[in-house]
Amino acid sequence: MTQNRRVLLKSRPVGRPEPSDFEIVDRPVPDPPAGGVVTRNAFISMDPAIRGWMDDRESYMPPIPLGEAVRATVAGHVVKSANPGFAEGDAVVGLGGWETHSAMPGEGFTAKVDPAIVPSLTAYLSVLGAVGMTSYFGTVDVLDPQPGETVLVSAAAGAVGSLVGQIAKLKGAHAIGIAGGPDKCRVLTEAFGFDGSVDYKAFDGLEPLAAAIASAAPDRIDCHFENVGGTVMDAALLNLADKARVALCGMIAVYNERDPMQTAGQKAIWQLIVRKARIQGFLVSEYLDRFEEGIGQMAQWVSEGKLVYKEEVVEGIDNALPAFNTLFDGTNTGKVILKVED
Amino acid sequence: MTQNRRVLLKSRPVGRPEPSDFEIVDRPVPDPPAGGVVTRNAFISMDPAIRGWMDDRESYMPPIPLGEAVRATVAGHVVKSANPGFAEGDAVVGLGGWETHSAMPGEGFTAKVDPAIVPSLTAYLSVLGAVGMTSYFGTVDVLDPQPGETVLVSAAAGAVGSLVGQIAKLKGAHAIGIAGGPDKCRVLTEAFGFDGSVDYKAFDGLEPLAAAIASAAPDRIDCHFENVGGTVMDAALLNLADKARVALCGMIAVYNERDPMQTAGQKAIWQLIVRKARIQGFLVSEYLDRFEEGIGQMAQWVSEGKLVYKEEVVEGIDNALPAFNTLFDGTNTGKVILKVED
Repeated sequence: MTQNRRVLLKSRPVGRPEPSDFEIVDRPVPDPPAGGVVTRNAFISMDPAIRGWMDDRESYMPPIPLGEAVRATVAGHVVKSANPGFAEGDAVVGLGGWETHSAMPGEGFTAKVDPAIVPSLTAYLSVLGAVGMTSYFGTVDVLDPQPGETVLVSAAAGAVGSLVGQIAKLKGAHAIGIAGGPDKCRVLTEAFGFDGSVDYKAFDGLEPLAAAIASAAPDRIDCHFENVGGTVMDAALLNLADKARVALCGMIAVYNERDPMQTAGQKAIWQLIVRKARIQGFLVSEYLDRFEEGIGQMAQWVSEGKLVYKEEVVEGIDNALPAFNTLFDGTNTGKVILKVED
Repeated sequence: MTQNRRVLLKSRPVGRPEPSDFEIVDRPVPDPPAGGVVTRNAFISMDPAIRGWMDDRESYMPPIPLGEAVRATVAGHVVKSANPGFAEGDAVVGLGGWETHSAMPGEGFTAKVDPAIVPSLTAYLSVLGAVGMTSYFGTVDVLDPQPGETVLVSAAAGAVGSLVGQIAKLKGAHAIGIAGGPDKCRVLTEAFGFDGSVDYKAFDGLEPLAAAIASAAPDRIDCHFENVGGTVMDAALLNLADKARVALCGMIAVYNERDPMQTAGQKAIWQLIVRKARIQGFLVSEYLDRFEEGIGQMAQWVSEGKLVYKEEVVEGIDNALPAFNTLFDGTNTGKVILKVED
């Protein structure tokens, strides 16, 4: 009989999540909640935000309860439905977990998708999913780059960053990406069409990195899309142009800290005064009521061949943790997706 | 014969400016530059921003050259004019220095003021000067507090902060001020009409200070006006409401550091993501073309008795440095002005 294989959070990780923090178990496939569905998951989205949910700390989502499966967005097919709006076999995306089967609420939490419109169900976890919507609204709404402006992106070879640079280019701006290592930097300019790149690993410390950005963007930075925090963010702040806008999407450099209060902290915030600049924090969930617009625009660009997206598919539910940790090792380029269907 | 007594910057201060960094000299009263004027200064404005100009560091103004008088806004009377728009005896405000006489350019740099409209020439260095305009535009334009919202102000007993709280109240918001010591906190609620106060000196470290703010503002902070930086700013960030706005006006906590890069840094910037909040840096110089609106509104509130402002007048050009250092000792309440006319 089919079982639900689940990766449970056993203890709250200190720093990097280790196998001892998790337990892999086989459980009966659950029944759907009232008005909800149960999915057989095909793909699980690996996102940095999940690391924050593992901590016992107030955030925009409650912590993942100990003994429960790690929370994640999943794409799969309905196998049991307690909602007339969802039939067995429907392809859906929703908030599930590191597990082969997820019980989910119905409308508003689980979205039916049409696999005919897009090439693969994985697109709904990447370019047409939260990652794509983060890139789209963070760029067009928070930054609003104008033709001829310069947009800097950190973690630019990552799932979000690589789309941000391409959207900035589609809006007529120049795009400069920060990434780790010559291979990733080559991908930025050759695969994703960035105008320039900065290899942060080639520069030791804030001042050399800031100087490297200055030489890649001699007219300074009008817009900066921040995924990293720490020294990379400070180096970007030191290169802001007057009236610059910073979209603060993530601070992956501090997510693995036991207590972000114990980190070195951002040292260049005073630059905001000198440059009359702003930092705007945002969450993709703010834009739920505009997802239709965002998905429509991104799907059009994809179908026109104007937007390239990269997925790294890792196979097997038992590989959830190693796949997740590549997000923090800096070894991934593109959206990391776990394939769990046989 | 009348001499120009000047306080020259002799060496760039390391940390707190010391008497050995300056030299007081008597020089001949200069001639006006082409199209400019020479003033006999009555009052000199003491502002934290001057500390930044003493460093050899790129900023929105060039560093004060060594061997030159410390740069400052002054109010006085024209004694020599090379500009038909300014007559001898005209009351003016402009960018001069720590000196009894200043040579200044004409229109656009030196403003004629009408002492009949306001009670004292000092008002043009405080409530109707850069301080008042910083408070006004930082509050109504950058923060834009709505009726019923809560506005937090750091350095609230200071020249800028005390006006910010009052303007927020005039806009229908609640105002909570952070200040050092029970006396200043009493001034906030009793003299300036704040709804509540937090004595940052009564709490040791970030978490206790953040908890004290939470208890003064249980519905969290919709707007924050930041003059201080460091732990005070982090404690405010930890109390932001969703979609909060932070006006970043000054970071006096780091101005006296030899290198702001060596400070502990801001540790709670990630709160901007969780709260979908923004920090906007600004300079009063952005609003030069709206000063007429700002001065008009502030003068009206003053004349209606709705706005209280406090000035601390220190006498004598030789006391420029001690007067200036009170800005950083936290011993002043209200705008510090040096009176230099006999």
